[in-house]
Amino acid sequence: MKITPIFDRVVLLPKEADSKTASGIFLPTASQEKSQLGKVVAVGPGGMIDGKEVKMQVKVGQEVLYAKYSGTEFDFEGKKYIIIKQSDILAILE
Amino acid sequence: MKITPIFDRVVLLPKEADSKTASGIFLPTASQEKSQLGKVVAVGPGGMIDGKEVKMQVKVGQEVLYAKYSGTEFDFEGKKYIIIKQSDILAILE
Amino acid sequence: MKITPIFDRVVLLPKEADSKTASGIFLPTASQEKSQLGKVVAVGPGGMIDGKEVKMQVKVGQEVLYAKYSGTEFDFEGKKYIIIKQSDILAILE
Amino acid sequence: MKITPIFDRVVLLPKEADSKTASGIFLPTASQEKSQLGKVVAVGPGGMIDGKEVKMQVKVGQEVLYAKYSGTEFDFEGKKYIIIKQSDILAILE
Amino acid sequence: MKITPIFDRVVLLPKEADSKTASGIFLPTASQEKSQLGKVVAVGPGGMIDGKEVKMQVKVGQEVLYAKYSGTEFDFEGKKYIIIKQSDILAILE
Amino acid sequence: MKITPIFDRVVLLPKEADSKTASGIFLPTASQEKSQLGKVVAVGPGGMIDGKEVKMQVKVGQEVLYAKYSGTEFDFEGKKYIIIKQSDILAILE
Amino acid sequence: MKITPIFDRVVLLPKEADSKTASGIFLPTASQEKSQLGKVVAVGPGGMIDGKEVKMQVKVGQEVLYAKYSGTEFDFEGKKYIIIKQSDILAILE
Repeated sequence: MKITPIFDRVVLLPKEADSKTASGIFLPTASQEKSQLGKVVAVGPGGMIDGKEVKMQVKVGQEVLYAKYSGTEFDFEGKKYIIIKQSDILAILE
Repeated sequence: MKITPIFDRVVLLPKEADSKTASGIFLPTASQEKSQLGKVVAVGPGGMIDGKEVKMQVKVGQEVLYAKYSGTEFDFEGKKYIIIKQSDILAILE
Repeated sequence: MKITPIFDRVVLLPKEADSKTASGIFLPTASQEKSQLGKVVAVGPGGMIDGKEVKMQVKVGQEVLYAKYSGTEFDFEGKKYIIIKQSDILAILE
Repeated sequence: MKITPIFDRVVLLPKEADSKTASGIFLPTASQEKSQLGKVVAVGPGGMIDGKEVKMQVKVGQEVLYAKYSGTEFDFEGKKYIIIKQSDILAILE
Repeated sequence: MKITPIFDRVVLLPKEADSKTASGIFLPTASQEKSQLGKVVAVGPGGMIDGKEVKMQVKVGQEVLYAKYSGTEFDFEGKKYIIIKQSDILAILE
Repeated sequence: MKITPIFDRVVLLPKEADSKTASGIFLPTASQEKSQLGKVVAVGPGGMIDGKEVKMQVKVGQEVLYAKYSGTEFDFEGKKYIIIKQSDILAILE
Repeated sequence: MKITPIFDRVVLLPKEADSKTASGIFLPTASQEKSQLGKVVAVGPGGMIDGKEVKMQVKVGQEVLYAKYSGTEFDFEGKKYIIIKQSDILAILE
């Protein structure tokens, strides 16, 4: 996909199911549905944003935890993506 | 069209239908209608805005993804345009 | 009219009807009534405002697009004017 | 009246009726009642306010246009005054 | 009373009735009850507050006008006092 | 109690009844219940907080006046404490 | 668990029951349920966040008091965790 996020935005492919990592299984909390897992698909350039220097800390291919309901959805080739600010990403899973 | 956006504003021509790019088809998410595709028609000069230096990162002719319901609408020669701040543009499509 | 806006404020004479420019006809979007056309009648001095340097970018006589419902109305010699901050002006028409 | 406004505050004597100036008649917009005319009665010292340098731009005796419903009312010798921040004054009439 | 306000706070003894000064009688506007008169009883030290230098401009013994409903009430020896930030004081009466 | 507040937070033991000081009796205003007395039990280190230098001005053992309903409650050994930001403390009593 | 919080975020394992420390027993206030105890499981790198330098002050293994309902929940290997900003942690227990 050729999409270049502006500023500190990041494109994620949300994961519907659980996420098996080397150390165990991550699950978004089903009951409260507050967090969500996603894979980083595209990363903005960072730089001076609203007068402040922002460095990008996530990379394409990483799995991340993000706050559900943050960001903006779009469709590409039949799949749903979301685009969010890096500051709405909570953690990187390894 | 002779229109010069002030500060970091950008004039967009919203796209009603899907957007065929070299790499695939972008669609605003019909269900939730959160994102929208548009073509950049005019770009403000940027510069010192609210005490912060802003550089314009989009160019006339680019296709962009933006958050629906952001910006202000106007009519020119029978077509609907919107004028939004660059920071409300989410990504550039290529 | 002898009126000197303070700081970065601008006095506009709203245009009721369409605006014929060299390149075409601008119309505020009638359906949603979100934008409005006006003629610049007086411009404040700019300068240090809330601790930030502001340069005035509009001039008396220019036609501008502004967000409807922004600013404050007043009457002078039987005509309605509005006074708004320069940052509420969206674009200059030419 | 011996009243010293603090910081960038200004005491105004609101004008009930129209205001005849050399160039014409100003009227607050009766229909929407959004603006109001007043005479400057006392001016604060300005200076460092909330970490920002503020210079006073209005003088005692000037007629000004201000946003109605801004500021705080008080009575002195049977007359109603309002005390507002300079930044709530819209323009100086001459 | 031994009370030391923190930062830029000021302790006031509200005045119930009118305030006779050398130049005339001040009254809080009874109808709208927006302003209130009080006597300064204790003054905080000022200094760096929220990253900004604040100098105290009121002194113990002064009569001041302040916005009603600002600040926090307390009782001391059967009298009601309020403690407010200096920036909520509108003017000093003399 | 071994508790170290983070940043500019302070642990207080709220006082239920009146507070007899050398100069008189302080009472939270019973009618409006806006203020509250408490004893300082633990004080955070201060320092750079949200990009601003904060110096702690209260000490363990002091009696303070604070805005009721600010802060967060917890229980320790059967007693109720609250932990609040220093900026929510209004004054020190002596 | 291999999880790296971004910026100044911290992963906590909430404690359901009371917390016995060397000096006594901490309890979240059952009645109002405003505070919560948790154990630090992972700590972000800190650094420049929103244009301000943030130093991490909590360490893995510490018990902390935090404001309930702050942060975002997730499940890992059948346990519930929360991820919160360091500034939402109130105090460190020892």
